[in-house]
Amino acid sequence: MGSWVDSAEVLGSDLPLELSGTGNRRAVLMAALRDAVRSGRLAPGTRLPPYRSLAADLGLARNTVADAYAELVAEGWLAARQGSGTRVAERAAPVTPVAVAPAHRPCTPERAARPVHDLVQGRPDPSAFPRTAWLGSARRALAAAPDDAFGPGDPQGRPELRRALAGYLARVRGVRTGPERIVLCSGAAHGLRLLAQVVGGPWAAEEYGLPFHRDLLASHGVGTRPLGVDADGARVDGLNRRDRAVLLTPAHQFPTGGPLHAARRSAVVDWARATGGLVVEDDYDGEFRYDRQPVGAVQGLDPEHVVLLGSVSKSLSPTLRIGWMVLPRRLVGPVVAAKGDREQFSSATEQLTLADFVGSGAYDRQVRRMRQRHRRRRDLLVAALGRLAPHVRVTGIAAGLHAVLELPAGTERATVLAAGRLGLAVEGLGAYLHPGAGSAARPGGVETPARDGLVVGYATPPEAGYPEALEVLCRALPPG
Amino acid sequence: MGSWVDSAEVLGSDLPLELSGTGNRRAVLMAALRDAVRSGRLAPGTRLPPYRSLAADLGLARNTVADAYAELVAEGWLAARQGSGTRVAERAAPVTPVAVAPAHRPCTPERAARPVHDLVQGRPDPSAFPRTAWLGSARRALAAAPDDAFGPGDPQGRPELRRALAGYLARVRGVRTGPERIVLCSGAAHGLRLLAQVVGGPWAAEEYGLPFHRDLLASHGVGTRPLGVDADGARVDGLNRRDRAVLLTPAHQFPTGGPLHAARRSAVVDWARATGGLVVEDDYDGEFRYDRQPVGAVQGLDPEHVVLLGSVSKSLSPTLRIGWMVLPRRLVGPVVAAKGDREQFSSATEQLTLADFVGSGAYDRQVRRMRQRHRRRRDLLVAALGRLAPHVRVTGIAAGLHAVLELPAGTERATVLAAGRLGLAVEGLGAYLHPGAGSAARPGGVETPARDGLVVGYATPPEAGYPEALEVLCRALPPG
Repeated sequence: MGSWVDSAEVLGSDLPLELSGTGNRRAVLMAALRDAVRSGRLAPGTRLPPYRSLAADLGLARNTVADAYAELVAEGWLAARQGSGTRVAERAAPVTPVAVAPAHRPCTPERAARPVHDLVQGRPDPSAFPRTAWLGSARRALAAAPDDAFGPGDPQGRPELRRALAGYLARVRGVRTGPERIVLCSGAAHGLRLLAQVVGGPWAAEEYGLPFHRDLLASHGVGTRPLGVDADGARVDGLNRRDRAVLLTPAHQFPTGGPLHAARRSAVVDWARATGGLVVEDDYDGEFRYDRQPVGAVQGLDPEHVVLLGSVSKSLSPTLRIGWMVLPRRLVGPVVAAKGDREQFSSATEQLTLADFVGSGAYDRQVRRMRQRHRRRRDLLVAALGRLAPHVRVTGIAAGLHAVLELPAGTERATVLAAGRLGLAVEGLGAYLHPGAGSAARPGGVETPARDGLVVGYATPPEAGYPEALEVLCRALPPG
Repeated sequence: MGSWVDSAEVLGSDLPLELSGTGNRRAVLMAALRDAVRSGRLAPGTRLPPYRSLAADLGLARNTVADAYAELVAEGWLAARQGSGTRVAERAAPVTPVAVAPAHRPCTPERAARPVHDLVQGRPDPSAFPRTAWLGSARRALAAAPDDAFGPGDPQGRPELRRALAGYLARVRGVRTGPERIVLCSGAAHGLRLLAQVVGGPWAAEEYGLPFHRDLLASHGVGTRPLGVDADGARVDGLNRRDRAVLLTPAHQFPTGGPLHAARRSAVVDWARATGGLVVEDDYDGEFRYDRQPVGAVQGLDPEHVVLLGSVSKSLSPTLRIGWMVLPRRLVGPVVAAKGDREQFSSATEQLTLADFVGSGAYDRQVRRMRQRHRRRRDLLVAALGRLAPHVRVTGIAAGLHAVLELPAGTERATVLAAGRLGLAVEGLGAYLHPGAGSAARPGGVETPARDGLVVGYATPPEAGYPEALEVLCRALPPG
């Protein structure tokens, strides 16, 4: 593989491509370019011809070629750099077998600290960020913004974004709200912090969940009591009158993967109505459901007793720091007051950019693109397990960005360590278990023996590194 | 004044302009356009010809006209709207005497709730935001960003921005730091919150200061004890061994306006060295000094005992939610830990945009432009007072975005109310006084009788409304 300069000289502006197939010219061109990269005809670092030249060579409209380049950049096949045109991305190399096992390469501390493969959940592949579309929204948003957008921000958030989200959430998640019941925040964690201040404790929480969320509530004086979890989601029959709120992940229990059963969805709303408790619905991946229609949000059942928390962290990027709370009417004022006199965290320019991104349909397109990618990755995971580790059962795969691999009792920790030695970062299910789970002090809960398992975040690795990450994963699993 | 459509039809693409004067063509064109707006030849709402047409008509380069339009948009003379071209801003109307006194217009509750003029400090004119330059930086930043920028953020902040700020702060504020001692945050308030957690209380604070900051510290368990303030800034001889930290505004005491005297700058560093206390330097407007070189930051005297807090809220916009802390080496780890495992608040895309904005010199240009504008406004304030209220003394005018008008004892509240009745929002000095100031319990402090005064934020109003705001202010002042 030559240096960038060499490749660029070899390629010149002449790129022989077979545009086979009918239909959308952009899609055909994208397929041809992907093929050329996959086959190695276009080596990593190769500079592509300017889109004007390629358009002239192929008899296509300039925009068609420019759009294909932009989408392939968004997909991670190409990379665009200011002043140096578009090139084949370094990571887009065809997958070649690289020895990562410690037997072949000494495991230096540096290597141990920086795994080669990453299947830790919760991080969508950052190379999938739609830079071009986002910048287009930023341009329109900055041009259209009223001057007051650059003054101190309203802590409820920009009305443009609240309007766009109200429409989107109604359409996609079955949420019942107007913009006046939405309060913007910097992410689900910020939302939880505000609710802890406004609602007070104690709360019930699923016995499997993010330790970060439990710790954050605790740091605001809100203790959580574990609720049992099974294949139908949280055992909401364990709720009682003393719980001020319950933190749930109804669309796709985090991380074990079951959707909350219809009977339990009704039951938790009944509990809230009867006790005045609050259902806090963490809708962290509600948009990513693969095999059937997404289950609508519980919020739609009773907007006056459910808070829906959402963000762009899974769908777009955790870097943007924009989330939302859809609140019962009585909580809007207190939550806005808890945020302070002005918006202290979320940038209004980014709020306006997201408003355009949602309103223009770019958010739908990105979610659809990511859904297809995640589903393909999930299918590859299931196929790899079927081929290389057929004894391992995989669950929670109907939705989301991660799956759970069930392990024989007592093997979880050894498996995580074995993966680490193979250069693969992955987490065990135990990392998510509430410290109080399984204890006798759990009133109304059902004893769930701690399970052994791996939480596999299949959205995390870059596109080209994924197949190899799966192979390493299967090698780390205990034998059948 | 016709409707927008009428004006646009009348104007067509023909705009007769006299480009008198020599020198920079852009500046000459901008002056001609400003004149046309001021004189009323170009009415509010009038659509300007496309810059290509005007360039052709006047024999100028297209970029020259495009830049002139963009700068006049940034200055608030023109307004750009997506899809409808560039128009004369509605607010850019020539100042005509409008009766706002209650004798002429009934003071309805609506009117009282929404004053016509705003001289409340702390809000730079939002129409001054440099939209075009900011978008240019966003474009370059998004193109150049490594993929990891779209993953979970490092709580210390993007290295690109920390590098840019280290250079800028050294050059402009005499700050001694490398990027490794900078931690990014969402603004000075976020920085104070983090320091409260890491340092603990009690703190000393200037007896005049932002109640918001004192309340925020109190909500994190850090009580503040008032330090006397005079024309030489805080009476740091009132510090003692029990104070864990002292919150100061050395460049321009907020809001009374004196810079901290050189002897006191040394004394406060001596106190910190002797007691292990921390100097927290809120450098909120250090870039805006008018009559001589800015005083360097106290941080430069002793980087191991001073934290410098800064943000873009005054220089650029409070909407961006980006600030910085320059920390003693020993505090970097604890402050980053207090922020959490990942960046929860500041968007990385905006951090990268600001890094480009600073690194490309656009930030310097914006600060320079705003400094000229603020100085002109300050001069207009002083001139208006000299003409209409020569008995009122104005202080704190060497720097910053506000001035203090001294009032006869006992007249402050009546003056603020009178201003309100005239449709002018402005605050009294008393709003900033520490509730414990002047009490006998203040060890080492000096009794300062509460002073009567107005805090006049001259950066706040839109450009065209400022002269009238000053006239209303002078009418509200007590007679001499």
